[in-house]
Amino acid sequence: MSELITLNEIKQAQSNPHKLIRKTPLIPFANSPEANNYNSLFLKLENLQITNSYKPRAAFYIMGSLNSEQRKRGIVMTSSGNFAKAFALAGSVYSVKVVVVLLDQTSRSKVDAIKKLGAEIVFCGTHYSSRKDKMFEIATKKNMIAIDTTEDRRVPIAHGSIGMEILDDLEDVQTVLVPCSSGGLIAGIASAIKLQRPSIRVVGVQPNGAAAAYHSLLARKPVTIDNWNSIADGLAATTPGNLPFVHIKERVDDIVLVSEEDIINSFLKLLNESKILCEPAGAVSAAAFFAKKLVNPGKTVSIVSGGNLTTELLLQLLSS
Amino acid sequence: MSELITLNEIKQAQSNPHKLIRKTPLIPFANSPEANNYNSLFLKLENLQITNSYKPRAAFYIMGSLNSEQRKRGIVMTSSGNFAKAFALAGSVYSVKVVVVLLDQTSRSKVDAIKKLGAEIVFCGTHYSSRKDKMFEIATKKNMIAIDTTEDRRVPIAHGSIGMEILDDLEDVQTVLVPCSSGGLIAGIASAIKLQRPSIRVVGVQPNGAAAAYHSLLARKPVTIDNWNSIADGLAATTPGNLPFVHIKERVDDIVLVSEEDIINSFLKLLNESKILCEPAGAVSAAAFFAKKLVNPGKTVSIVSGGNLTTELLLQLLSS
Repeated sequence: MSELITLNEIKQAQSNPHKLIRKTPLIPFANSPEANNYNSLFLKLENLQITNSYKPRAAFYIMGSLNSEQRKRGIVMTSSGNFAKAFALAGSVYSVKVVVVLLDQTSRSKVDAIKKLGAEIVFCGTHYSSRKDKMFEIATKKNMIAIDTTEDRRVPIAHGSIGMEILDDLEDVQTVLVPCSSGGLIAGIASAIKLQRPSIRVVGVQPNGAAAAYHSLLARKPVTIDNWNSIADGLAATTPGNLPFVHIKERVDDIVLVSEEDIINSFLKLLNESKILCEPAGAVSAAAFFAKKLVNPGKTVSIVSGGNLTTELLLQLLSS
Repeated sequence: MSELITLNEIKQAQSNPHKLIRKTPLIPFANSPEANNYNSLFLKLENLQITNSYKPRAAFYIMGSLNSEQRKRGIVMTSSGNFAKAFALAGSVYSVKVVVVLLDQTSRSKVDAIKKLGAEIVFCGTHYSSRKDKMFEIATKKNMIAIDTTEDRRVPIAHGSIGMEILDDLEDVQTVLVPCSSGGLIAGIASAIKLQRPSIRVVGVQPNGAAAAYHSLLARKPVTIDNWNSIADGLAATTPGNLPFVHIKERVDDIVLVSEEDIINSFLKLLNESKILCEPAGAVSAAAFFAKKLVNPGKTVSIVSGGNLTTELLLQLLSS
């Protein structure tokens, strides 16, 4: 049985971050008082984290926790792209060999960035579920350390730092909106917040076409969705992780869904009104705010989780 | 003879800003240690200031300094767009009537935003030099207060707050790059910095085709350029202001020039690598860094002065 992560673990992880890990800015969304909901939506800009997503928080924490024997063996992991980019960077900084298993459809900009950082890439086909088999196969064959990022408790522990920073910067926050895929991000943020300020609402957001955690929460157990279809390629999970899901059940108030149109509208609002370029997954949680998926959210923080997208996709979004 | 602004004036203006004025984030440019010049370029994000440019710092300071008789009469001013947007907002917040005189070629996004904020717009043709005549004409005819933003000492005093914030956030900064038009921004920033830390270099940056301050500094007196031609519509001055120029002569180390290609490259680097959307003028100072216009700049801050541009221009820049 998975044990829930503790506030002490989050604080310990946060106490001595690698110097490359940034405290990201929290900014007001609106740029005029006339804008809707002025003063009520704030953006936590993880697209300004190094490698342009929040993932290095956990990648560096995990890499720093390996012993010298483990570092010599190297690590293998799987990712929808951003986590791989983060581990590739951590590997180059710590001089640890990194192999990443990617879905064939991973966006080219992410693949290029991962290669550039020196990691070895293995493609595993188009099914989310095939990723872990490939990872464990490589770990066995090459005697490498497999990092199962969906079940590794160091992941939510490290990502809890985002929740800590939000409480630090916006004491009177009432709602925190978090994009949700396998659930490691929201597990960490919800733990950091609920263990200190249980009255703050923590709400997950998923695309209609990538709603594994949503359906799992309804069923009260992890379920696998048959069809995955969303522009938000960063939210690739067809099932939540077991460890994150235990945290979601205990510590998350709700998960809400947004449409593809909501996501595109949110992307364009963030770009045009806040001058922030994110990837589609990074616009998902703000989409729930703009599309009024919550009743009386009050002062709200939306996690802009990443900013990795191709110019082709940007052009496509601009003309939609 | 114009008197130079003092550190006390800057501090006094900064001590009690309007609650809508933000301390903007200062972020590292690079998103991987492999990026060129990692850890040496930082961006001061004035595109994240309210109204998406630094101008409200001065507009609110000036509006707040008017007496009740002046407020009743209302103000008239002229601008390349962003200052008008800032005064329009300040007028709506302070309930002061605002008339703005704009060049015909002011970008539509700026015109729309100014209208939306409730200011009255008067177009004055295509020549920079015709703006002030129109402004004083309206002031006389309508008994309004003319705010001559290029000669009003409250402008550099208020914009000095940007220099104060930079010193606050990055103590070991060595070079500060500032886009330069009529000169009010760099006059304020250079004063805040040089009066405290004279060894820090403060360098103005202008497009080749909008180099009035550059030529003035060479001539040691304000000169007017005959041809203005740049994508950076926010840097519309064909001559520096007299008051700013006195400050440039005394407190600015140098002014350097960048090409249109340098500006576009810089715009794309800021968007693709830092996920920051700026207007062309906002990319001008970083362009000097990327194009290596400075010898050994060391730890450098570039002012990203604004983010107001149309989707059409964005699409054009993305395909260049």
